[in-house]
Amino acid sequence: MSVPDPAVLAAQAARLGFTLDDAQVADMHAAVVGAEEAAAALRARPVDPAGADPARGDLWTRAWAGRPGSWNGVTALDGRQAAPSGTDVPEGRASDGRREGHEDHGRATADRPPHELGATDLLAAYRAGSARPSDVVDTALARLAAAHEILNCTITVLADLARERAAESDRRWADGSARPLEGVPFTVKDVIDVAGVPTTCASFRRGDRPATESATVVARLEAAGAIPIAKDATTEFAVGGPHPRRFGACRNAWDPERWAGGSSSGTAAAVAARVVPFGIGTDVGGSVRLPSAWSGLTGLKPTAGTIPRTGVEPLSWTTETVGPIARSARDVALLLSLVRGPDSRDVRIGELPPFAPPGVPSDLTGLRVAVPGGYLTGLCDSAVADGVAELVAELERGGATVVPGEIPSAAAALPIGYQLVFAEAASLHRHDAEHWGDYDPVTVRRISQGITTPAADLLRAMQFRAELQSELDALFRGADLAVVPTTPATAPRLPDCTVDVDGVEYPLYAAQSRSTMLGNLTGAPGLAVPTGIAPDGCPTSAQLIVPPHREGVALAVAAWFQQRTTHHRRMPPVAEQITCAPTGR
Amino acid sequence: MSVPDPAVLAAQAARLGFTLDDAQVADMHAAVVGAEEAAAALRARPVDPAGADPARGDLWTRAWAGRPGSWNGVTALDGRQAAPSGTDVPEGRASDGRREGHEDHGRATADRPPHELGATDLLAAYRAGSARPSDVVDTALARLAAAHEILNCTITVLADLARERAAESDRRWADGSARPLEGVPFTVKDVIDVAGVPTTCASFRRGDRPATESATVVARLEAAGAIPIAKDATTEFAVGGPHPRRFGACRNAWDPERWAGGSSSGTAAAVAARVVPFGIGTDVGGSVRLPSAWSGLTGLKPTAGTIPRTGVEPLSWTTETVGPIARSARDVALLLSLVRGPDSRDVRIGELPPFAPPGVPSDLTGLRVAVPGGYLTGLCDSAVADGVAELVAELERGGATVVPGEIPSAAAALPIGYQLVFAEAASLHRHDAEHWGDYDPVTVRRISQGITTPAADLLRAMQFRAELQSELDALFRGADLAVVPTTPATAPRLPDCTVDVDGVEYPLYAAQSRSTMLGNLTGAPGLAVPTGIAPDGCPTSAQLIVPPHREGVALAVAAWFQQRTTHHRRMPPVAEQITCAPTGR
Repeated sequence: MSVPDPAVLAAQAARLGFTLDDAQVADMHAAVVGAEEAAAALRARPVDPAGADPARGDLWTRAWAGRPGSWNGVTALDGRQAAPSGTDVPEGRASDGRREGHEDHGRATADRPPHELGATDLLAAYRAGSARPSDVVDTALARLAAAHEILNCTITVLADLARERAAESDRRWADGSARPLEGVPFTVKDVIDVAGVPTTCASFRRGDRPATESATVVARLEAAGAIPIAKDATTEFAVGGPHPRRFGACRNAWDPERWAGGSSSGTAAAVAARVVPFGIGTDVGGSVRLPSAWSGLTGLKPTAGTIPRTGVEPLSWTTETVGPIARSARDVALLLSLVRGPDSRDVRIGELPPFAPPGVPSDLTGLRVAVPGGYLTGLCDSAVADGVAELVAELERGGATVVPGEIPSAAAALPIGYQLVFAEAASLHRHDAEHWGDYDPVTVRRISQGITTPAADLLRAMQFRAELQSELDALFRGADLAVVPTTPATAPRLPDCTVDVDGVEYPLYAAQSRSTMLGNLTGAPGLAVPTGIAPDGCPTSAQLIVPPHREGVALAVAAWFQQRTTHHRRMPPVAEQITCAPTGR
Repeated sequence: MSVPDPAVLAAQAARLGFTLDDAQVADMHAAVVGAEEAAAALRARPVDPAGADPARGDLWTRAWAGRPGSWNGVTALDGRQAAPSGTDVPEGRASDGRREGHEDHGRATADRPPHELGATDLLAAYRAGSARPSDVVDTALARLAAAHEILNCTITVLADLARERAAESDRRWADGSARPLEGVPFTVKDVIDVAGVPTTCASFRRGDRPATESATVVARLEAAGAIPIAKDATTEFAVGGPHPRRFGACRNAWDPERWAGGSSSGTAAAVAARVVPFGIGTDVGGSVRLPSAWSGLTGLKPTAGTIPRTGVEPLSWTTETVGPIARSARDVALLLSLVRGPDSRDVRIGELPPFAPPGVPSDLTGLRVAVPGGYLTGLCDSAVADGVAELVAELERGGATVVPGEIPSAAAALPIGYQLVFAEAASLHRHDAEHWGDYDPVTVRRISQGITTPAADLLRAMQFRAELQSELDALFRGADLAVVPTTPATAPRLPDCTVDVDGVEYPLYAAQSRSTMLGNLTGAPGLAVPTGIAPDGCPTSAQLIVPPHREGVALAVAAWFQQRTTHHRRMPPVAEQITCAPTGR
């Protein structure tokens, strides 16, 4: 009833085409042993054969696409007016980050340098003529270089391309042909293709050839006028450890002695350091939301099958999504509206219900908020818990009601999600298995857990997806939104990257994704929203989880929260430090 | 690089919840060893990670649903008139089974006893008042009892239910409220639920409780007025050997010393013995088409995701379909039109393109027929090959053109299909693994091959589905239809059930499904069509394979062939022998 000996696992791996050295075998065995308790518990869960089709889990997001109603819809039907989505409220300085009555504690948008502006405000500045794309891109490139020196956040700089595009954007703003994101610089996690640039995946095993075309998500942003200026640091293949051998760790803009989080590490670092207003990452277990949380940013893992993955180095077919990392919910909503929808190449995307960036609701009357506990709050630093409580209290002040809602199998989601991810990742990396010696050992250690996963376990995990979806369905029958900690603690300290919960250290992988994997396994969207600054000076975050295709609810609620608070506008020390911009203001 | 030792496999199985005795372990090991060469070959096939999403294979049938055109469509557009689909041409007596110029070698429909009539003709007889449902059902029940004595084809007789329904059908024909299949008796493979009747799956482990509701396919037939009269013999769980321990082997109506074929054994036997005009089976590797072929019947495995599997004991989520077994393509078309379409419960069925039973085309001009060889004809008895050649020649006489078209990976499809089936079957039967001692050892032997299948192999097999679909796509770019032997030889001789190809014996499982598994793995439909009688007195069969959702092409072509030939109307000796009908004529 136990895991086979290392030698047996090694033979099994060899049979499948993976030849591992002794250290790799020891790592693989340890990983499988570590996962066995959860795997055994899952095997022991009863299953009804008649309803056990592993494909059932693929249908949940589609089912929600066809369901009418939601709090957002109710608002519209009620005729309550959303606030005009004009200029964002500028950065506040209130010590608790909350502004009663929309007081303005900060500078007006027009007084702020363009690099401090989010995408929407930057576009307003372009429109008003108070900023110009070529200046903004020059500043961004200079700030990127300065940030990289401190944070190690960049793999490839696209300076020539960016300047060329910026010149075109200047012309377009001048001649009235500006597109929806005209001249807004952004960065791209280096597992996502940009035409003409190698995609390294932070690995010695990739990046020797330029990508022949841009990933769909990048091409759509470019078609909207946005300008990619860099490929960002990531963990190796978006799954390795915080210290990828090829490029090293990416540091946190709030405290360079901490990790930016991963795997969309450099993207979060660049957005936090006010290099760019947004970036594009990927998320298989929290890789957009965790670095967003640890960098004080607003990051979205959208509904599965929403943003095409064409041109993205695949890690896990079932759980992976592309997602934007930005500084406000309003910007995330704008980006989502521009990049979602089928591209006829990503096989997991069918027709989607329409999405328009929601306005900011005038109040939250009728919004039902669940605050599930159990495993999701069982390990949680008090500063993070306070942030969740503050956010929920603010929503209640706006008229929202807290309702019961739990996710009983939440604890099982993390190991089962990893089981699925690693089995798929092992299959995806099998073609390269002869070169695993060139991978970071941490990458091999993690992926190798999936080499010997039995098909029976994989199928059982696929069945579990549908069971977990049923639990979310039950919750969402009574609630429009669930609020949980995005991750139990503030950013992990380098080099070991354990997670500190009220002074006690926990291993990174056992702690970081407790609430995020839920969304990867089920397909439900999750939005990381900054909730404040912990006593250690680092940001805390709450995750807003909504049913599939209800991103609008989470984004509207977060925009409402962000209109009344300034957490999302707090700048990290590094952003202030890199004032070396050679051009621009 | 080889299969683990029996003890290692046993430990692996125990870890997954399957405790096997020594004999079962030896069987499992032998099965895995037997499958290893094909598995290793599949692992060695290169794969492009970017296009390797295992879900890709699920989209193929949907893609074809949206593709315009096909020979059938072309016919309609050309305005060529289909013959009226009235009374079928009666049974011929020509020695070669072919009737030039639609000569009538047989008795007219009106002269034939109702039990010899197919569904369409029986309905015509009801309409004309020359037959009455209660008489027909009485005769069917009597013939069923007589046939069962010889063939062992029945598990449960539904006499009371059938007589009650027949009385209602009498009334409906009398009062003008007859439904599309009013009063037509049929039988149901005993893995498919009929409300109030136990579903035994031919196993000691099932059948202790009556089904609470009928399977969707049965409910739809009942709603159309058809009358289930029996649950048919099958192999255990539709996967065991020809001699299920609980009920024993089902014999062949053409030669009771031979097997009816499986796993829809009793269904084919009852239809061949002229007990009922049609029955409903299931097909995971040929289980509708093989017994159809070996019983001189016309049987369809439709496009995957066409007929709901709700209420069907699952064996394999990916490959299994429900399918009708009847005596003519015309009847199959009628049945298909009545049972297909989503039921909102089978998660693998979405919206389908419309289907209407095709008329019989007046000629076959423009029809492009591929006759792939290689593995698909490499093992083939000369009588079977002659049948295929005769059918193709007849199509050419009708104006069809033979075009090139091969399926290079056909040889890989059989073992890879089994790998997928057994991995899914093992997962499905895991909940019962403590009671495997009550299963037939052959069933355990087969299913157990899938217990230890690595997830990497399962995922690779899923990827292979899409690769095989690409090969079919390439073939169907140049052809409307492919014709292959349904199975290499005539019915296997009991008790050993090896397959005799021109005097040489081959193991049943290595030979029978060479062309049928193609359709299960890819989702493409296949229609078994009788092509004549071999020198051994048993029927031969050709399989017409068409793209997904092009059943109409295969059915129209087969109806054309059957209008000009009498193979499908030849009655087996047992059908003549059981003239003991107590009522009716």
